[in-house]
Amino acid sequence: MSHPSGPAGPAFGQTVSQAAPLLRVLSGETREKPPLWMMRQAGRYLPEYRALREKAGSFLDLCYDPEKAAEVTLQPIRRFGFDAAILFSDILVVPDALGQRVRFLEGEGPQLDPLTPETGLAPLAGELDAERLAPVYETVRMVRAALPPQVALIGFAGAPWTVASYMVAGRSTPDQAPARLFAYTHPVLFGALVDRLVDATASHLLRQVEAGAQVLQIFESFAGALPPPLFRRWSLEPVSRIVSRIRARYPAIPVIVFARGAGAGVEELAQSGIADGVGLDWTIDPWRASDAIQVHRPVQGNLDPLALVAGGDVLARAVDDIRAALGGGPHVFNLGHGILPQTPIAHVEQLVARVRG
Amino acid sequence: MSHPSGPAGPAFGQTVSQAAPLLRVLSGETREKPPLWMMRQAGRYLPEYRALREKAGSFLDLCYDPEKAAEVTLQPIRRFGFDAAILFSDILVVPDALGQRVRFLEGEGPQLDPLTPETGLAPLAGELDAERLAPVYETVRMVRAALPPQVALIGFAGAPWTVASYMVAGRSTPDQAPARLFAYTHPVLFGALVDRLVDATASHLLRQVEAGAQVLQIFESFAGALPPPLFRRWSLEPVSRIVSRIRARYPAIPVIVFARGAGAGVEELAQSGIADGVGLDWTIDPWRASDAIQVHRPVQGNLDPLALVAGGDVLARAVDDIRAALGGGPHVFNLGHGILPQTPIAHVEQLVARVRG
Repeated sequence: MSHPSGPAGPAFGQTVSQAAPLLRVLSGETREKPPLWMMRQAGRYLPEYRALREKAGSFLDLCYDPEKAAEVTLQPIRRFGFDAAILFSDILVVPDALGQRVRFLEGEGPQLDPLTPETGLAPLAGELDAERLAPVYETVRMVRAALPPQVALIGFAGAPWTVASYMVAGRSTPDQAPARLFAYTHPVLFGALVDRLVDATASHLLRQVEAGAQVLQIFESFAGALPPPLFRRWSLEPVSRIVSRIRARYPAIPVIVFARGAGAGVEELAQSGIADGVGLDWTIDPWRASDAIQVHRPVQGNLDPLALVAGGDVLARAVDDIRAALGGGPHVFNLGHGILPQTPIAHVEQLVARVRG
Repeated sequence: MSHPSGPAGPAFGQTVSQAAPLLRVLSGETREKPPLWMMRQAGRYLPEYRALREKAGSFLDLCYDPEKAAEVTLQPIRRFGFDAAILFSDILVVPDALGQRVRFLEGEGPQLDPLTPETGLAPLAGELDAERLAPVYETVRMVRAALPPQVALIGFAGAPWTVASYMVAGRSTPDQAPARLFAYTHPVLFGALVDRLVDATASHLLRQVEAGAQVLQIFESFAGALPPPLFRRWSLEPVSRIVSRIRARYPAIPVIVFARGAGAGVEELAQSGIADGVGLDWTIDPWRASDAIQVHRPVQGNLDPLALVAGGDVLARAVDDIRAALGGGPHVFNLGHGILPQTPIAHVEQLVARVRG
């Protein structure tokens, strides 16, 4: 696989041998020290994030403010020298830019005006409001311009099932019961919603690439509650359609798919060839992943975020176990889920030293 | 495996060929029509349950009232003719009988006074308060006396990890983060808590057998958030010790272990030989379970409770798929999680007809 050559940014025209470590691993290279970044690395555990967040209005305001969002994206790179920056944004900018009202209330999860069998897709626009999302792409451009060439920039979006589960329930729900029931009882309408999200998500990701994202990650955060036939129909299949559209336009841009809680479904994902990189949550046995997943695709993961909160020997042992299991093949070191707000900075420093030391 | 011969109840002295269908399947028999029961089958979806519940005081009061608890246990048997009754009780009677304050507030989950690194195990008694639990065993006796011989009576308890996660957090928590962190940072103290629970749980289950329970089910409801090494240490290992104690005393009493969300861990459980029957949650592919689990042990499951809420063609197809995948070996038909309160009675009737028809 040749190096991702996005239409913008300093990576353009590079070959794999010159590329950032993350890109090299996603192209299949095994490295003695794995590239390292952390999901939700721009977040509340950082005092500099909390300081900026206080002055930034609502969470969505921050997502749509290129200066501030770029600054937040860069904070963990400056502090820890991670191998990748991930755009500071949210998976719910897609429903927001489709015209569904999205609010982030302090101390609560996101709230949306739910779609129902009665409303159907009427509250939604046919496609993304490009103007609404322009600041996101501007953020990507600013971050890429500010990053050193060895640090890859990751764009992202939520997978249709995960985003649809918010759009139907209006909030985060245990086991996504409202969306699952909706999909059972109104499969045609739910399919139309997923189709709309496939279009919108592919378009959103393509624009991130055009602005300078060199890697894309698709978050299927709620894969865990889907029975296997529904996982295939509502997760693998639409994600596959999104990736096909990206490959058709930018064949060299690698796509990581992180299907949290999918268990055996992650092995299916790896075998399917849909993803260039396969994210592993913290419940997956890295030894099993080495046999059943990493033989097919480069993997990314999978430290328990609570082992990082614990620190000390617990953290050291957990890091070493993952390295021992996955170090023999292409591996991006990451957490198995987003970093928790209570994580001590010193433990992140310990993680970086352990992975690189 | 010979038939379970409990020390009490009409099953005593029976051979497998005379035994209830559930017992026959758990001893390894493949039946053309699988025995059928539903987790949480005595519950809010039943109008007769709701009527009795209104008059019963607190939820724990109901658990400790043998007349009412026996009545509730029998309600779904009368209405649907299921192949098994499961004692109406709760996994938190164990911490309650160890002296930890447990409350069930209407419309909220259970609340306990959390154990902390500072309190240690000081708030707990060394062993179960037998007097506190006497009504539970009385319920078992009453139910067994009222049941026809072809209907098996299941006793149950929570697995130590699941119960400990409530005892540490004081409530249900996403991904059991407080208990997981406690286990990382205070492994010796957490191990002592698990040891206490192994003793208490084994004792509680043995007393249920002595009162007439013919099958035991251990609920590891929160298996899903444990990384594999912690799953082995805090789930498989203590559950194995509990089962060993039951086998030492009553070798013929089958034990079903239901480790919800354990994914690949369920395959390890099946291979380990710890359980006589392996519960499958609704996210496990029944075809894969046929190859990787049912070859080792009889299986139980695994209809998505929301497919039962949906009813109609969705339900019919889901039932048929599970039967097609698991019908060639020993299989107990069940849901993959507890029945939901909003489930229409007519859909349960449809389920019964479909499984038996």
